[in-house]
Amino acid sequence: MTKHHPLIDLESGVYAENTSISLNSGNIRLRRMQGGASDGVDIVEIDNGRLQLTVLPTRGMGIWRGQCGDLPLKWDSPVKQPVHPAFVDQSRRGGIGWLDGFNELICRCGLGWHGAPGNDVIRDNSGNVLSETFLPLHGRIANLPAHNVVASVEESGVLKLTGVVDECSVFGERLRLTSTLGMAPGASSFSIHDEVTNLGGNPADIEILYHCNFGMPLLSADARFHTAVQQIAPRDARAAEDVDTWDLFREPQAGYAEQVYFMSPISDDQGRAIGVLAAADGASGVALRFHTDTLPCLTLWKNTQSQRDGYCCGIEPSSSLPNNRAFEREQGRVVVLDPGESRSFRFEVEVAETASHLAALLEEVQQLQTQEERTTHSAPQPSWSPA
Amino acid sequence: MTKHHPLIDLESGVYAENTSISLNSGNIRLRRMQGGASDGVDIVEIDNGRLQLTVLPTRGMGIWRGQCGDLPLKWDSPVKQPVHPAFVDQSRRGGIGWLDGFNELICRCGLGWHGAPGNDVIRDNSGNVLSETFLPLHGRIANLPAHNVVASVEESGVLKLTGVVDECSVFGERLRLTSTLGMAPGASSFSIHDEVTNLGGNPADIEILYHCNFGMPLLSADARFHTAVQQIAPRDARAAEDVDTWDLFREPQAGYAEQVYFMSPISDDQGRAIGVLAAADGASGVALRFHTDTLPCLTLWKNTQSQRDGYCCGIEPSSSLPNNRAFEREQGRVVVLDPGESRSFRFEVEVAETASHLAALLEEVQQLQTQEERTTHSAPQPSWSPA
Amino acid sequence: MTKHHPLIDLESGVYAENTSISLNSGNIRLRRMQGGASDGVDIVEIDNGRLQLTVLPTRGMGIWRGQCGDLPLKWDSPVKQPVHPAFVDQSRRGGIGWLDGFNELICRCGLGWHGAPGNDVIRDNSGNVLSETFLPLHGRIANLPAHNVVASVEESGVLKLTGVVDECSVFGERLRLTSTLGMAPGASSFSIHDEVTNLGGNPADIEILYHCNFGMPLLSADARFHTAVQQIAPRDARAAEDVDTWDLFREPQAGYAEQVYFMSPISDDQGRAIGVLAAADGASGVALRFHTDTLPCLTLWKNTQSQRDGYCCGIEPSSSLPNNRAFEREQGRVVVLDPGESRSFRFEVEVAETASHLAALLEEVQQLQTQEERTTHSAPQPSWSPA
Repeated sequence: MTKHHPLIDLESGVYAENTSISLNSGNIRLRRMQGGASDGVDIVEIDNGRLQLTVLPTRGMGIWRGQCGDLPLKWDSPVKQPVHPAFVDQSRRGGIGWLDGFNELICRCGLGWHGAPGNDVIRDNSGNVLSETFLPLHGRIANLPAHNVVASVEESGVLKLTGVVDECSVFGERLRLTSTLGMAPGASSFSIHDEVTNLGGNPADIEILYHCNFGMPLLSADARFHTAVQQIAPRDARAAEDVDTWDLFREPQAGYAEQVYFMSPISDDQGRAIGVLAAADGASGVALRFHTDTLPCLTLWKNTQSQRDGYCCGIEPSSSLPNNRAFEREQGRVVVLDPGESRSFRFEVEVAETASHLAALLEEVQQLQTQEERTTHSAPQPSWSPA
Repeated sequence: MTKHHPLIDLESGVYAENTSISLNSGNIRLRRMQGGASDGVDIVEIDNGRLQLTVLPTRGMGIWRGQCGDLPLKWDSPVKQPVHPAFVDQSRRGGIGWLDGFNELICRCGLGWHGAPGNDVIRDNSGNVLSETFLPLHGRIANLPAHNVVASVEESGVLKLTGVVDECSVFGERLRLTSTLGMAPGASSFSIHDEVTNLGGNPADIEILYHCNFGMPLLSADARFHTAVQQIAPRDARAAEDVDTWDLFREPQAGYAEQVYFMSPISDDQGRAIGVLAAADGASGVALRFHTDTLPCLTLWKNTQSQRDGYCCGIEPSSSLPNNRAFEREQGRVVVLDPGESRSFRFEVEVAETASHLAALLEEVQQLQTQEERTTHSAPQPSWSPA
Repeated sequence: MTKHHPLIDLESGVYAENTSISLNSGNIRLRRMQGGASDGVDIVEIDNGRLQLTVLPTRGMGIWRGQCGDLPLKWDSPVKQPVHPAFVDQSRRGGIGWLDGFNELICRCGLGWHGAPGNDVIRDNSGNVLSETFLPLHGRIANLPAHNVVASVEESGVLKLTGVVDECSVFGERLRLTSTLGMAPGASSFSIHDEVTNLGGNPADIEILYHCNFGMPLLSADARFHTAVQQIAPRDARAAEDVDTWDLFREPQAGYAEQVYFMSPISDDQGRAIGVLAAADGASGVALRFHTDTLPCLTLWKNTQSQRDGYCCGIEPSSSLPNNRAFEREQGRVVVLDPGESRSFRFEVEVAETASHLAALLEEVQQLQTQEERTTHSAPQPSWSPA
């Protein structure tokens, strides 16, 4: 029988601060940060005996950091600690204020939109503007707090943390995220299962992207990204410069301008694609497996700036590409949910702490790529990158 | 003798959380919400033995919800719980970010301005622009917290809750709201008496509107709005479409676009106008009586969207119409307060729980309308609606 | 040996609320405000037996108010209490939203920029725009909270309060302020020693200005500002109107439009300039001494509006003038810090409570002015004021 431990329930007034739930081989704890821009941020620390994760209910159930055995799962953002949404003005700096709070291992972009800031212009068949709204970078969900958080322990010992976050407004989006993080005892892997529901009475656009970010020690010069894809293309001219080494990371370099690659991944017979970040020493790595029925897009964000500026890479499975929503709608990639309809988004993260484990992951990638030829475009593709 | 119970007093460091004040026939309690976007929101629950109201000091002394006997007084906004102002960016979405926090039974719009977002352009006699400021939807007051809240019990048993909210800035408005909510023991009615004071050294523009919102069960198909007015006009072409049934509500309808009607109410010998929402069953209703010396305008907001999208109607007495302030100033409806000057705004809400009580309220409306002929305009009026 | 008392340390989870540190002749205490727009604001009260200061870790280590013996050090802003940054939207009102939280005795403007809101346009040699960003009034630092605050008592009894505030973002500024306030036991003076460090991997622009503000009783009609300067110029036509009485203050006057004067101060053999506000009675005053190697500019802000509107003057030592950053860069006044580089900014505040003490301060000013002739410009200077 599954045991449920409510941690936060706004409606019924539950707020279980400093409650520690002891498991056979682990622990779950809710606590609130005090001081600095983290003041008032709730964190849930989960430990399955091998893997520790710190979840941020206050920031849309993002995962701040993790540790698997001796291996830190994180990057060193210029923004050192979790930031309360009260300190994030998304409109700032021409709509990139979202970056003031960006330091998570995994954060969601969405739900109504994600991607580059800009106007979403909806036109009729004659090209007349029906509506126009400015959409700042990466949407609202990472800066909205969960109003309901429950830790559950299944009979098998599998631990689940479920959080519910509403992205709702009057005359606006009425979307709900129900996010479940799952970890088996002693495992070096975890799963994310998100349900996004249209609570509104009219069809609603949704877009979601999982910004999974890794810095040192997994990322370093000569670390490499492995994945099986049908097509890959640079996002823009800057990415096109180095398309030949798109999968290879550099040492930290002050002033490095980001390079971004878009891909259409190949999935296995369970419908899952895979992306692996292999550390340069060949002895550790991290794999993402994601279900392409609802996450058909993959973006690699190379951001190998100086360590001071946030040396990291992003592996980003998504429902649509991180372009302006107007462009994504034209390309047919924006999901429309009917009233009451839900869509599931699922992925798993698996950490390799040994050379043999990493080798097995890379073998899996290679096998998957044998299914189809890969096309590597040397220039941005019109259906993937706005002109 | 009146007994005063300070609940919040920022200046002297009083914060009486979880203090419960027991009355002969009721109770008052301050508590703080935790979790979600309500985190940090203070609520004061008042119960006179028959009528319960939940007041939000953190949101400008708005009234979140009520219950009279078995009758809920509320609407189901897409925004489910009270929202801390830290989560409201009024500039968002072209200046309608206010809607991210909108779910109250009664909330104030003002004090410096209310109404549609837009530029307030002040011109000299030659038409040259003297100043221009963007004013987002419905002003600041609903997202400003009270710094002083006192519960009082008069010898008669009448309960009062007073809250002081400052809408002040350097080189900006310096306005103070002193709001008093009054309830007699066992009554099914309550009163609001607001004082708005210009704390500044120069004359100041003020505008106030009481957004009183009702959803199910009072509102349903065939519920009707009754009021005695001199003139009524549709706000715009959309409202003009159905001017013949302006007072009749529809069932919830996905995609319904709001219809808004402006009115000049008739007042009785005590200077009070009346508006009544009569439930479709004829057995319950709610009346607003407001003093037209300072609240000469009345707006009916028909927003009978689907229940999921916030099926409701708004009955909105106000000092000026909810248009852009520049237009209202041209029409002479913006109130100007001299330094130190105050203005009072008063209205009462009376709940009818029986058919006979409702019938008496409708009779009152009908009597008042006999004083003057009603003019129903089929098109927007130039002095009420900007071209 | 110096004793350190950590008050706030986000990283290690220290939050010493209501800790009272007793000194031989004084006291230090951290407490959190509740209610109104101050809810969640931390204040540190320091008392050396003669001088009391209230520091605001939540507002960038600004100093809210002070008291020296019987003399209040403050002004009466229309904004009555310290404002939590969650209630400040700097983009509001065309970028002057900063004023919604402005009421300190001393607040910092900076670190990435300060001064009038506007676009910072960076152009190449051909005049082409390389980048353009809107910078709201006076920068971010006054609305960013310290994540680390330590009170220290040296063996000599000197009390220090150190706070660390990060102004950091991804793809943005990565600046750290380490601010130390020092007070000797029983002294009527205190010192500020700020270190600003570029934590980023690329060179960074910095600008800092100390907005030191005084109202009644020090400021009144016939109070006068004394300083030794090489040049003084009005900022604009409005200031030029009264350049002959630039150093003399008026009684409170409703509708008075601010007058601002820019100066290049003369420094003594320790590299310190001085500015003195002398009360009209000749029996009290306040002196600022600031180190011109890093604070070469001085601004006098005359804001003798009505008492209701915030009658005060600002004495503002700074690294650059409070113009738009693009203009200051053209004039060579923006400081550029290399990666890892720090710059120190130091000043002292000395309160005179007697006529003889004030006379000594004025004598010091006069002596310093004898070093160089003063040039008083009757019109704005092109290198100081944008056209």
